Amino acid sequence: MRIDDPTPGSASLPREASASPQPAVEFSFEPLTPTSFLTRSAIVHRDRLAVFDGGLRLTYSELRERAGRFAGALEALGVEPGGRVAVIAANSHLMLEAHYGVPLAGAVLVALNMRLSPGELGYILDHSGATVLLCDNELQSLAGDAIAASSGAARLVNATQYAELIERSSFVWRGVPDERGLLSINYTSGTTGRPKGVMYHHRGAYLQSLAMAFHARLHPESVFLWTLPMFHCNGWCFTWAVTAAGAQHVCLPRPDPEAIWRLIDEAGVTHFNAAPTVLTDLAGHPAAHRPDRPIHIATGGAPPSPALMERFAALGIEITHLYGLTESFGPVVICDWKAEWDELPAERRAQLKARQGVGNVIAQPVRVVGPHGSDVPADGETLGEIVLRGNDLMLGYFQDPEATAAAVPDGWFHTGDLGVMHPDGYVELRDRLKDVIISGGENIASVEVEQAVASHPAVLEVAVVARPDRRFGERPVAFVRLVPGGEASEAEIIEHVRTRLARFKAPSEVVFRSELPRTATGKIQKFVLRTQLSQALGGQDQIER
Amino acid sequence: MRIDDPTPGSASLPREASASPQPAVEFSFEPLTPTSFLTRSAIVHRDRLAVFDGGLRLTYSELRERAGRFAGALEALGVEPGGRVAVIAANSHLMLEAHYGVPLAGAVLVALNMRLSPGELGYILDHSGATVLLCDNELQSLAGDAIAASSGAARLVNATQYAELIERSSFVWRGVPDERGLLSINYTSGTTGRPKGVMYHHRGAYLQSLAMAFHARLHPESVFLWTLPMFHCNGWCFTWAVTAAGAQHVCLPRPDPEAIWRLIDEAGVTHFNAAPTVLTDLAGHPAAHRPDRPIHIATGGAPPSPALMERFAALGIEITHLYGLTESFGPVVICDWKAEWDELPAERRAQLKARQGVGNVIAQPVRVVGPHGSDVPADGETLGEIVLRGNDLMLGYFQDPEATAAAVPDGWFHTGDLGVMHPDGYVELRDRLKDVIISGGENIASVEVEQAVASHPAVLEVAVVARPDRRFGERPVAFVRLVPGGEASEAEIIEHVRTRLARFKAPSEVVFRSELPRTATGKIQKFVLRTQLSQALGGQDQIER
Repeated sequence: MRIDDPTPGSASLPREASASPQPAVEFSFEPLTPTSFLTRSAIVHRDRLAVFDGGLRLTYSELRERAGRFAGALEALGVEPGGRVAVIAANSHLMLEAHYGVPLAGAVLVALNMRLSPGELGYILDHSGATVLLCDNELQSLAGDAIAASSGAARLVNATQYAELIERSSFVWRGVPDERGLLSINYTSGTTGRPKGVMYHHRGAYLQSLAMAFHARLHPESVFLWTLPMFHCNGWCFTWAVTAAGAQHVCLPRPDPEAIWRLIDEAGVTHFNAAPTVLTDLAGHPAAHRPDRPIHIATGGAPPSPALMERFAALGIEITHLYGLTESFGPVVICDWKAEWDELPAERRAQLKARQGVGNVIAQPVRVVGPHGSDVPADGETLGEIVLRGNDLMLGYFQDPEATAAAVPDGWFHTGDLGVMHPDGYVELRDRLKDVIISGGENIASVEVEQAVASHPAVLEVAVVARPDRRFGERPVAFVRLVPGGEASEAEIIEHVRTRLARFKAPSEVVFRSELPRTATGKIQKFVLRTQLSQALGGQDQIER
Repeated sequence: MRIDDPTPGSASLPREASASPQPAVEFSFEPLTPTSFLTRSAIVHRDRLAVFDGGLRLTYSELRERAGRFAGALEALGVEPGGRVAVIAANSHLMLEAHYGVPLAGAVLVALNMRLSPGELGYILDHSGATVLLCDNELQSLAGDAIAASSGAARLVNATQYAELIERSSFVWRGVPDERGLLSINYTSGTTGRPKGVMYHHRGAYLQSLAMAFHARLHPESVFLWTLPMFHCNGWCFTWAVTAAGAQHVCLPRPDPEAIWRLIDEAGVTHFNAAPTVLTDLAGHPAAHRPDRPIHIATGGAPPSPALMERFAALGIEITHLYGLTESFGPVVICDWKAEWDELPAERRAQLKARQGVGNVIAQPVRVVGPHGSDVPADGETLGEIVLRGNDLMLGYFQDPEATAAAVPDGWFHTGDLGVMHPDGYVELRDRLKDVIISGGENIASVEVEQAVASHPAVLEVAVVARPDRRFGERPVAFVRLVPGGEASEAEIIEHVRTRLARFKAPSEVVFRSELPRTATGKIQKFVLRTQLSQALGGQDQIER
């Protein structure tokens, strides 16, 4: 059989033709969407393990099949393109499949934080207008309470029903008409009011996924452990990045240190992401040991403490420090490490690693701006607000143009985080705007004091918050958790800080605690500490211990 | 100083607001352009080595400065946005700087193949409408002849003048109004007529660069040796990918094996790309040795022979096989290797590695289609044409809508390459449409015969072409280059092929040669061999040796 030749052959080059660069037929434009990574991996890695979830194993072709059938099920349930589908589930194949099945139906994923209250979840269900709520069987009671606390528009589908739907539904794989269309809505934790719905677009998730795969150096032999919640910024887009790399997703419902250490060996884990608090638990666990292969951890939310970094370095595990917000698809900034820094003394390395860093490979350069929107000097000292723009920024807050306009007053997203620009172009956070302590008319960045406290070898974790003070307005108080077996007195820690910072920045008091209150995503809840302080204070100046 | 709080604070969530996902202010959209990688690396890697070119060393901030000043120089020379700037240069800082400076002026880069004749170059100058021709001093005479062979519209700027311009020009960094706008025009080698100008867009080059950085596993400590010409598909987009990774460009004017082996040690090379013919020379060179670090080579244009792969494996060097065309920004397809294949016997590994593979991480899935545009069965046997579409496809041929329409008859770019789809989703090329040998009414893929010949241990390189034949129409003839010290007779090689393929596919004759004719980019020139055959034939049936 001879193949007919459809190629141009000896086509002439008419000089009179127009120079328009736009082709007659659209063949060089495909909308960017993270579901395309599943298309590819279901071809390239069809028979290789995509998902390892307890007793369940899925290949990439099975993951694709299930995602397409879930899309079909959503259509059968009456979900229309643009409709919202909420999911409340621990890290699992179900939550991962939703990251593909929902967009494949042309719908919008609303991954819910499973640690919220029914009232909060009910608010989000109503605000997002979700018509379906998919849940783990373990969370069915919470899901039911959430619907009861809402206007009741969402239909509940539990994991058992989901499995039946997948079984009998037809395969659907809708194209993406507009790469800037809505992919998911991620609700912020709402520390300053009602949760806001951060709108992610396909283009941003696609590019951010490529950036994450690149910086984490994911490849087809990587094994990624889901210690970070998938409901947190869609798992920093690793829900898609791991698939882009053709790597393996290992699901873990909760970041239990014992399970993590066990899976590191059993599943051959090479990568995971976690808040420093999770890493702290991991470092202190009796099962901690040096794995038989290189492991790469990314952490964010707070800088890893020097003690934590030394502990993991001793285990042969590398930590990358990242920074981002829900509004920036997770890690928009990365503390890109340089080989030449390996030669520096440990203390200097810890300082460099504590910096949030530089924009990731697809991000626009990070800026630190003063009150009038101009860049602060890159002197490592002048405080300013960190502002962002670029393809990995949200479209805005869902149904809240007012909040969007307030967060983006000048074409730049204002993070509310205060930081400095170092002379080498690396950004370092000093504080949340609202966490700044004003003492005697001077700003004290609580993060700066925390780092000074954390540099004491006996300190495992620390949070510094303001205590109202008659004379100075506010004074810093340090809440400290010591390393196991560690010993330090209040005076010793205050003195330790005074050798590192201006005297007025040293905490007036040190409160020792065995646990610090944390958010659902593992961040220390400073507002809880502040509340405890003000309650303890009553009318007094002095907190009781 | 207290920073004024520009953040939303306790903004309310008015439910009556519209659900439009488009933000009021554009802060989540930046046009994709590969020059943004230089912006980033000039921040992150400002003082690190970007370019190592003979005696010259440039940091990333110096590279940025020079690129911006070149853009300023182009403006001063009257180049307008959209204007074309041609460059004829060996791999050098000058050619690399042009990959940034030209787009930064809003202009379009035309990187010329330095091995073309003045007449061919003159044609391209006229066809592209270039108003500036930048050249290496070593190529000034050729550049002058090219202008003489053209209508003379292009102004010649040699490297000395370039250095002066850079010195005195102001810094210009134009934005990209449209990411699908024209970035560069790469002229095809024109084996089937006049060269055609392949139009690259910013979006495609950006995405392809990310794909190359990802698949090659480039990172900030990588050292990339420029053995592949930068004028070839803009160096497969590695001109931008290496910068995206913050890695080091090591320039090499010509792929001289001795210089390559020397630079591998001197510059600490970790990556390079080259045609198999260059690798063949490299493997056979007396300076060949095992480097003291892992080295990753990508090769394309023809599958690496089993002998070549074994030789490099013995040196501890890994080879990735890629496939692409000028029209696809270089490597659109990659033979993505799987760890489980490492366990297979050498012969099977060689077969797997000889396959072109699967679409890269940003590419659309590759298709192999029959005469009516439907996919051939994935049986590894049915021949079809390889067709492509996606973001790493050209906009079309410059000023040649007729050729564009012929190459893209149905929304898919038709490569003119024949191949099969294997059951595991990997594509394997069998031949160029024009290289198929039709013998006794049967198609013989010359590539298939070549692979059978190449599997003989004494064979280093082979090309199989058709010889006109009275009885069969055409018969295959093999041109063979033996490994140093290798011995094989014609009968032995023919018998070797017969044990592997149908008898009619075995070559009728074997011609032994010490060199095979190559194109400027290192591909074997089959048309030269065919011409030699028909000249030698005269009216006879038998070629003289």
